[in-house]
Amino acid sequence: MPRLVVRSFTISLDGYSAGPRQSLDEPVGKGGIQLMDWAFATKFFNTMFGRSGGEEGIDDDFASHADDNVGATIMGRHMFGPDRGPWDLNWKGWWGENPPYHHPVFVLSHQERESFEMQGGTSFTFVTDGIESALQQAFAAADGKDVRIGGGADTVRQYLKAGLVDEMHLVQVPLLLGQGERVFEGLAGVEDRYECNEFTPSNRVSHLRIVKKS
Amino acid sequence: MPRLVVRSFTISLDGYSAGPRQSLDEPVGKGGIQLMDWAFATKFFNTMFGRSGGEEGIDDDFASHADDNVGATIMGRHMFGPDRGPWDLNWKGWWGENPPYHHPVFVLSHQERESFEMQGGTSFTFVTDGIESALQQAFAAADGKDVRIGGGADTVRQYLKAGLVDEMHLVQVPLLLGQGERVFEGLAGVEDRYECNEFTPSNRVSHLRIVKKS
Repeated sequence: MPRLVVRSFTISLDGYSAGPRQSLDEPVGKGGIQLMDWAFATKFFNTMFGRSGGEEGIDDDFASHADDNVGATIMGRHMFGPDRGPWDLNWKGWWGENPPYHHPVFVLSHQERESFEMQGGTSFTFVTDGIESALQQAFAAADGKDVRIGGGADTVRQYLKAGLVDEMHLVQVPLLLGQGERVFEGLAGVEDRYECNEFTPSNRVSHLRIVKKS
Repeated sequence: MPRLVVRSFTISLDGYSAGPRQSLDEPVGKGGIQLMDWAFATKFFNTMFGRSGGEEGIDDDFASHADDNVGATIMGRHMFGPDRGPWDLNWKGWWGENPPYHHPVFVLSHQERESFEMQGGTSFTFVTDGIESALQQAFAAADGKDVRIGGGADTVRQYLKAGLVDEMHLVQVPLLLGQGERVFEGLAGVEDRYECNEFTPSNRVSHLRIVKKS
């Protein structure tokens, strides 16, 4: 059965996956980009950006397998762009002409917008009728593969709360952010459905796996 | 200079240091006692409870040094007992006749109560005029040694927010609690004063050290 997965979802030691006040200059909010240092240090990311070098090991293993068997991505609007309200139709995501998805991406939004295609197999489709509709469309587009939730915190939280996430790979970074967006908020009862079944620290971060209780 | 320290303060992967609904039967709230499994597994704790065995290594090192150079403890009322409102004068703490402190303990409360002494050098003094008063009294009683905040979350948060904590040793457990009490809440700005300068994972938990920025 295809599954709904979260991979390499990164939070600070105080639980924030992004800093406050997201903007064009700070896509991950104030201070939030530091959350990605563990990923930027890997060989996988360096290779993706056309650079040599980078670290191998635990972090690289997780980063390089994050898209294994993933056929579609779901994300929230703020992960797609910084603007709010009516769409700026010139905005086509943070990632340039050839986004790193290479499969259909479904963006949750309250504002309708025509879908469009980018280079390299990535398409963006905008879903205004809720998380379950987005999930159905994503599973159909994934054609038997898994669907990955890209983020952000609010989107992951909604799917967790609805019990729709099958597996979540969480990365805890030893960084104090102080404020921002967090996924673990208003989730009382989630502990009855989910549990942590893996703890794999590297020399930089902790990797945790959260799964449905059997 | 004597310092105000937090040691072995343990939180779940979603940031809770105690479960909800503390009671006489569940001093750490629903599910909260699991947060202490890492400590209960150490040789230090087994020895303290008169048992042989227990694990040595990273967790045992942190647990056994948590009271080094500590001359007094501050705690919140809920760490001292389960009751609310006027004092039950028969209640003398969770720890029996010989509490594991062996030095003066200052309990923050809104209800006045006479101080009293237990076996083994532990005394309990009740402070109703705020965290700074408690800190002054604790430093005086510690006689040149450090003061440790025992907990709980609310007490640690108040001292962090006021910038009075000098060093905090945090333990992150790969456990999903879902709800409860947390220290990292409403602390926007704490990231300007404090930073994490140590990440030491064991095979069970992550140990982090938070210090004032220099």
